[in-house]
Amino acid sequence: MANPRIAIDAMGGDYGPSIVVPGAIEAARAQICDLLLVGDKNAVGVELRKYDTSGLEVTVVHASQVVEMREKPSEILRRKKDSSIQVACQLVKDGLADGVVSAGNSGATVACGMFVLGRIPGVERPALAGILFTEKSSMVLIDVGANVDCKPFHLFQFGLMADVFAKDVLGVHRPRVGLLSIGEEEGKGNVQVKEAFDLFKLSSLNFVGNVEGRDIFTGNVDVVVCDGFVGNVALKLSEGLGASLTRIFRKEISGGLLPRIGQALLQGAIDKFTRLVDYAEYGGAPLLGLQGIGIVCHGVSNVKAIKSAVVMAATFVEKKANQHLIEELSANEELTRFGKAVKY
Amino acid sequence: MANPRIAIDAMGGDYGPSIVVPGAIEAARAQICDLLLVGDKNAVGVELRKYDTSGLEVTVVHASQVVEMREKPSEILRRKKDSSIQVACQLVKDGLADGVVSAGNSGATVACGMFVLGRIPGVERPALAGILFTEKSSMVLIDVGANVDCKPFHLFQFGLMADVFAKDVLGVHRPRVGLLSIGEEEGKGNVQVKEAFDLFKLSSLNFVGNVEGRDIFTGNVDVVVCDGFVGNVALKLSEGLGASLTRIFRKEISGGLLPRIGQALLQGAIDKFTRLVDYAEYGGAPLLGLQGIGIVCHGVSNVKAIKSAVVMAATFVEKKANQHLIEELSANEELTRFGKAVKY
Repeated sequence: MANPRIAIDAMGGDYGPSIVVPGAIEAARAQICDLLLVGDKNAVGVELRKYDTSGLEVTVVHASQVVEMREKPSEILRRKKDSSIQVACQLVKDGLADGVVSAGNSGATVACGMFVLGRIPGVERPALAGILFTEKSSMVLIDVGANVDCKPFHLFQFGLMADVFAKDVLGVHRPRVGLLSIGEEEGKGNVQVKEAFDLFKLSSLNFVGNVEGRDIFTGNVDVVVCDGFVGNVALKLSEGLGASLTRIFRKEISGGLLPRIGQALLQGAIDKFTRLVDYAEYGGAPLLGLQGIGIVCHGVSNVKAIKSAVVMAATFVEKKANQHLIEELSANEELTRFGKAVKY
Repeated sequence: MANPRIAIDAMGGDYGPSIVVPGAIEAARAQICDLLLVGDKNAVGVELRKYDTSGLEVTVVHASQVVEMREKPSEILRRKKDSSIQVACQLVKDGLADGVVSAGNSGATVACGMFVLGRIPGVERPALAGILFTEKSSMVLIDVGANVDCKPFHLFQFGLMADVFAKDVLGVHRPRVGLLSIGEEEGKGNVQVKEAFDLFKLSSLNFVGNVEGRDIFTGNVDVVVCDGFVGNVALKLSEGLGASLTRIFRKEISGGLLPRIGQALLQGAIDKFTRLVDYAEYGGAPLLGLQGIGIVCHGVSNVKAIKSAVVMAATFVEKKANQHLIEELSANEELTRFGKAVKY
């Protein structure tokens, strides 16, 4: 079998090729894949020469345009056809790559993923999955911002997609899938969630029912489904609490020697907690449901985050996750038809 | 002026009168108010005799029924007319008390509040406000669970109610009111939020625009408005993260002497963070928009939490917050009419 081929937006992120190039190279050493580094060939070349790439398949694909952080996705799609992110997506579309990783403008990455790569037949709405560490392992929160106004049927498909991801990429045997609501009992929640509950209940998924905000980080569930508005609020709230924790500790520690010693002695616990809420740790958020795969990284991604994201993309391709998704959609076809037919 | 009269569900909470009675007495010493302790007169009497109530106005009002934690609100309303929570609400309805505090079944408290006390004319939907500590001060998150399916106009009224609460009870001069969304720019969010944005923009409030999940705990905003589904998820997620932090630290500390010393040296920072996410610290969540005021406390409330909740109720009454809410509704009457007229 051919190696997974990952197209990487080398110009993306706050630090561009200086971070993206070494991150990608580290990934290819950890998980076999061919790299297509997309961006200004001179800038990428300068970075590339700094590293040993012996034994790796690395190709530089020139792109003359760069997307800025504040540009609107719709504008980018129309006017920046030769931008590194759009060229990277086009490589997948043309069958020259299997997946895309970008730490650039998130809105642009999602838009290019959706409109250039296109959806898997049967998937109504691609969704962005947040991979979070919990006290025990990792879990998938889906959707974290690609779809803010969702129908129950969309939530159901998010669950199917995240289930496949958890199996193939996180290696969870039979993922426990929960629906984010405001009470554990059936019948709790808003209209959207109550209707989605029925679809989940009848599905082939290992559905554990409603879960609450407090269950996300316990590690007792592998997939938590919600609409992109709720998921985005939840993700950013977690990040915000993590940032508050960091600020509080920093302030305390700057107060003197004793707290500094305290910090050193408790570093293990502090690191564990920080990991729970540090989005940069997870590499990136996969956009699921595309023909191919797109991984959306934080703008502030460091080398480790880029590496994790490229490894994630390569694993996704190597495990044939999209093939499994098509099978899962097919196994739940009747519910899908039913879900689409119902008017909410 | 007469003292604020607070009816307290003495049977509520996991510990009943043994916690509620001393909590109420401590409150009356901190903030002048008359106490009406509602519940089984023998059980309440036993507790009451343990404390010095000299100089305080304390009345025991007998109620023969107790609400269990798992009972449905609709059943309680119909079948438990002589339950401590319903009798407490009836005291307000009959003009014998000004507000209610309960640590019992939350659903029952909200239902009795809404159906026994009734709404302030002009308020479409009473809402539950979560009072959270931030890095700098306190803030109000509204709604945290009373209304899961909201129209834009409801969100707008939540903002008006929380604004009055922040002014009168938290003592914030001109509260900064934000709308919880998934991006700071105008035009970000779901349909509901985008429509609500326009109402807020035109209102008399000190509206600071959209805020994100990460902004809740920074202390840069005094009121954050969202629907009850999102607010409940956010509140429980914060609690969940706090609980995770506690478990992680406990595990680490049980590992040996050095981490234990570390904990002692860093206790200040740990306490500060725990305070951020410990719901029990805030006393209770006020149900705003009622004829009177209801404070919904956590079932696990300790004496301090009950005390804070009773003080909150007494302050609310003493400051004439409901009178100010009526004025605020009137100042925004045109928007209210407009908001109600628009079909979403």
